[in-house]
This record gives sequence, C-alpha cells and structure tokens, in this order.
Amino acid sequence: MAELTAEDRFLRSCRGQEVDRPPVWLMRQAGRYLPEYRAVRKGVSFLEMCRDIERAVTVSLQPIDLVGSEAVILFQDIFTPIPAMGVDFDFAPGPVMADPLRSAEQVAALRVPDPRESVPFVFEIIRTLRKALESRSIPLLGFAGAPFTLAAYMVEGSGSKDFASLKTMLHREPELLRELLATLTEMTVGYIDAQIEAGAQAVQLFDTWAGLLSPAEYREWIAPTHKEIIRRIRNDDTPFILYVNNGAHLVDQMADSGADVISLDWRAPLADAAERFGDRVSLQGNLDPCALAADPDSIRKRVQEMARDAGPARGFIANLGHGCLPSTPVEGVRAFTSAVRSLG
Amino acid sequence: MAELTAEDRFLRSCRGQEVDRPPVWLMRQAGRYLPEYRAVRKGVSFLEMCRDIERAVTVSLQPIDLVGSEAVILFQDIFTPIPAMGVDFDFAPGPVMADPLRSAEQVAALRVPDPRESVPFVFEIIRTLRKALESRSIPLLGFAGAPFTLAAYMVEGSGSKDFASLKTMLHREPELLRELLATLTEMTVGYIDAQIEAGAQAVQLFDTWAGLLSPAEYREWIAPTHKEIIRRIRNDDTPFILYVNNGAHLVDQMADSGADVISLDWRAPLADAAERFGDRVSLQGNLDPCALAADPDSIRKRVQEMARDAGPARGFIANLGHGCLPSTPVEGVRAFTSAVRSLG
Repeated sequence: MAELTAEDRFLRSCRGQEVDRPPVWLMRQAGRYLPEYRAVRKGVSFLEMCRDIERAVTVSLQPIDLVGSEAVILFQDIFTPIPAMGVDFDFAPGPVMADPLRSAEQVAALRVPDPRESVPFVFEIIRTLRKALESRSIPLLGFAGAPFTLAAYMVEGSGSKDFASLKTMLHREPELLRELLATLTEMTVGYIDAQIEAGAQAVQLFDTWAGLLSPAEYREWIAPTHKEIIRRIRNDDTPFILYVNNGAHLVDQMADSGADVISLDWRAPLADAAERFGDRVSLQGNLDPCALAADPDSIRKRVQEMARDAGPARGFIANLGHGCLPSTPVEGVRAFTSAVRSLG
Repeated sequence: MAELTAEDRFLRSCRGQEVDRPPVWLMRQAGRYLPEYRAVRKGVSFLEMCRDIERAVTVSLQPIDLVGSEAVILFQDIFTPIPAMGVDFDFAPGPVMADPLRSAEQVAALRVPDPRESVPFVFEIIRTLRKALESRSIPLLGFAGAPFTLAAYMVEGSGSKDFASLKTMLHREPELLRELLATLTEMTVGYIDAQIEAGAQAVQLFDTWAGLLSPAEYREWIAPTHKEIIRRIRNDDTPFILYVNNGAHLVDQMADSGADVISLDWRAPLADAAERFGDRVSLQGNLDPCALAADPDSIRKRVQEMARDAGPARGFIANLGHGCLPSTPVEGVRAFTSAVRSLG
C-alpha cells in the first residue's frame, strides 16, 4: 500500500487497520541517554522540568529528529497530578512521600480537583506540542500512571523491592486500599479526558508495579481499575494503550481490559500474545532496552524477529519492553528506529 | 496412610511418592523477622554469622520449634563460595563488589578451589546440623546460588533494578559472559557435591535474577547452566529443587531442567503448573510472603487453595513464593505452617 504519514500509520496500527509497516517510538525516549536532553535539563530539577512548558516541549520533540522516533509522548511524570490531591512528595530521584498514606483519614482527605485548574501546564504543553506536530503529521500521545502504581508509591512512601507496606494494607485493610484505588481511578479518568481534550491523539496507561501481584490478585485489585478507566474515557475514538511492567503472567487479563493496544514487557513472548489475542488487540513492544547495547546488525535482526513474531496481530507498534535507560547508547536507539523504518 | 516422619514426608514429596500431606518450610525462615534470630545476630556482621558455626547452627534450627517448620536449610549466603574464587566483596546489605568483573583478565583469573578447603565451615555447619536433626527425623537442605545470579552481582557490582552492565556484557561480549557462567557452573557443581557429601539430604538452587531475561534469552544463557549442574551432581538420589524468582514466564523451561522439584514464585499460577508439568516434577511454593500479614483465617484459606491448586502434581511442598521479609509477622508464619500441618 502507499506510504502513510506517521500519524496515520500509528493510529491505524492502534485500531488494527492495514498499514504499510509498523510505526516506532520508545518509552522514555525523551531522557537522560540523550546529551541534548541533559543540556536542557541542566540546572533545573525534574519537577521544574515538568512544569516548564518550553523545556518540556523541547525535550518531548527531541527524539523525532535526534533518533528517528515516529511518535511524541508528552514529557511529564506519572506523579504530576498527585500534589493537587493534597499529597506532598519529592523526587530523589523516584517519588518519595513526606507522609506515606496509611490511615483512613489520609485516604478520605484526598481531593480530586479539575486537572485543568490544578496542573494547567500539562495541557498547555499538549496544545503546544500538537501545534508543532500537526504540520508534520506526527502523532502525540498523552499518558497517566495507573491507580495501583500511584497507590504503591503513596502507601509505601517510595519505590521498594517488595512493597511490603502496600501489600500489608491489601491484606489487612482491603477496604482502605479499595477506597484509595477508587479515588485514584476517578482522578485518572479526569486527567486522561483533559489530555485528550487538549489534543492527545492516543493515551498510554503505565502500570509499573502491577506485576507485583499474582494473576488472582491482579484480577481482584488491578484489572477492574483498568476496565473502569477505559470504559469511562469519554472520547472512545482515542486509542488506549495499556502497559504493565513485568506483566508476562498478566497478558491474558491485559488483553481483556478493553484497551486497543497492549504494551508488553520484554519477558512476555510477543509471538504467543499475537497468536492468542492478536485478533482482538494490537500489540506494542517489546525489546529489552538493554539489547540496544548490541551492535546495529544484531539490533536489526532482533527487530525483524519482533516484527515476524507480532505478524499474526491485527496491529503492531515497535517499541521497547521498558523505558530507555540513562546508559542506553544513542546509536542503539537509532539502529532500532532505522531497522523498523526499513521493514515491510 | 500412616503418619510419616518429617524427613520421609519431605523426601517422598520431592520424589513424587505418596505422602499423608504436604510438608512445609519457608525460604529465609532463619531471618530477621524472628526476635530470636536478631538476638543471635546482635553484634556480628552477616559475613561473621555465616562463618560462625555455633551461631549459624543455632539460627538454622530456630524455625523448627519457633514457627513449626518441617525442614531445615543451612544458614549461609549464596555469595559464601565467591571470595575464594579471588573476588572481593562486602555486604551493604546485599553483596557489593570492590571491583566489578568486566574484563577478560578478571574472568580468566577466577579460581575454582576445592570448597572443602576454601569454605570448610559450610560443611562443618552441615555435619553439625545433620547430627542434631537425625534423631528428630527432620530433613536438612543445602543450597547454592545459581551461576547467572552470581554472575549478575559480580558483573553489575551490586544489586540493581535493571542490571544494565550485566546485560551490556551479554549483548557486547557474549563470549566473556559465557566463560564466566562456565566457571561459576563448575564451582557450583563442586560446592553442591561437597554439601551432599557432608550430609545435605536435598539441595535448592536459587536463581534470584534469572527472571530478568526473556524466555528466549533464558533458553540460551540460563537453562543450560541448570541442566549441567543437575546432570553433574554426583549423587543422583539427592532431590534437587530449582527456584527462579520472578520466573512465571519461565516455568516450562524450569520443568525441563531435570530438577525433581520446581519452586515457584507467587506470580506463577500453581494450578496451571500442576496440570501441565505435575506428572514430571514436584512443585514447591508459592504464597506471596506479604500475604503472611493477613489474619490467620485468611492464611488458612490461602493454604487450602494452594494445596487444592497443587493437587494434580505428583508431589507438593508448601512454601512461600519468595523469602520471609524482615517485616513478616511471626504469627503469620505460625499460621502458615499450622494450616499446612492440618491438611490431608
């Protein structure tokens, strides 16, 4: 078929419509591995970067020309909408809560303000990006952290290997955790709606810590939050991508979430997902970011394998199985996007 | 059938022979969650504890009477045999290498001494434990860290979220990593052999970081090390247990390793493994250690579900899906062992 614009190729792939070849972008493509990102970031904290419209727009756009990415994702953090809920935190570098959420009073006190008023800069960044991208027909993605992942940080107080405090709440005060997840689900629906209204053409939900739970616990605690968010997003035409980190044991349930695209960790075999769920959902992923340390020929081979594995799926978006790392070589990222561009 | 001794029940379960009910023990059952452990540990470093025969024997035995465990595992660290290979490290609290292994010279310089000479205290602890346990007919387990997990720490220099340096070696200098794994496999075979010779009645191989790899990479890099170790252990009668942390995507390959028992992470559905591989291997696991924070009734229910899920397997050993945490409540551990004891 005729060559498509990046925007058409991406949106059609999400929806399972025919395309000329898979589109490509990378999670955390605007990040420290890029010298040009580090230059913009110099002298400002991560939180300041998130609120600085000019800087955030600049780094969001960098991966298009610097590494050949074909989609732009809003530069922002999953914790951006949290302070306005009445929760203090800092980055060190992951989120660290001044006061971990452990009591019924704390959970009851959480607010769900209109994000257009509480974090207006997010939507200003989206509007500015969309203007910059429209003439180039490059798609713009919004994103949000999923309720369980946000709750994990809020209850635990920071990142953790075991998230024992979070799981203690799950086992000892299930109703409290349920209330927290309900509040965060409410907040997330409004936050994503406002991003779509401002111009996001697709949205990705990041559930970084969902892989901590067993399939049975995920079914009880997490899957319902995904389903509710997806059902309630007002603009049904906007493709919804669900990413679960370390979720190889949860792929069946991800495919049942109602998402248009499920984004797989590198541990989940793409071929298997394509065969089992590829008629219902499009797939995104899933090269191990660390594989970008290999030589360009190996990367090209891996990309060809990936595309072949994803073959039976109705749509495929080439990406990593997790975000770019600070140590990811820029030439590896370029080899990755260039290998995808020469597919099909 | 008639009530068995703890030793018979455990060894028969490993081998898939009929038993009255599943045996129970817990990974890291000798640990900081026990006040009595903390009392013995007071004033000595973790490394000193490992080399102190009296203290190591004392804490190894504590879980029998304190929490009702039905098997004893040697108190020791997976890094115990590493210094004698010519590698300096310290605990802070995980292993931290003075000089991460990155060059061909460093890998070539590794020694594989006879463990009976380099870490004689390990076998003295085993002999002492065996003497103490024989009259009570309680089984004694030895253990070792798996080559990939040891290599992960040695190359990375410490624990890590992404193990990017290890994976960079895998992608850029595969032959070097292969040599390192071969040397560690050699060492591990000798180390396990010597433990069996000293009196270990079963052995468990811990591959804590194997879950970092995709199924295809695991097949290339890790599965061969497990198979070689299992094939080369001289005493074929000694049951071999293979534990892979975060290995829900690797269960098929674990079942093909030649191990008598595969020990599952809580993310891997026990019922599924029992149905698919239960005729060939016994299963061990797999309650989330964090679930021991629940009330005794919930724990009892979870134990009953576990036993039902494991039902089709030729043998089942009740355990956790990962080690006890410092925050694990002692009463939760007691509820767990007592629920298993009242099964069947």
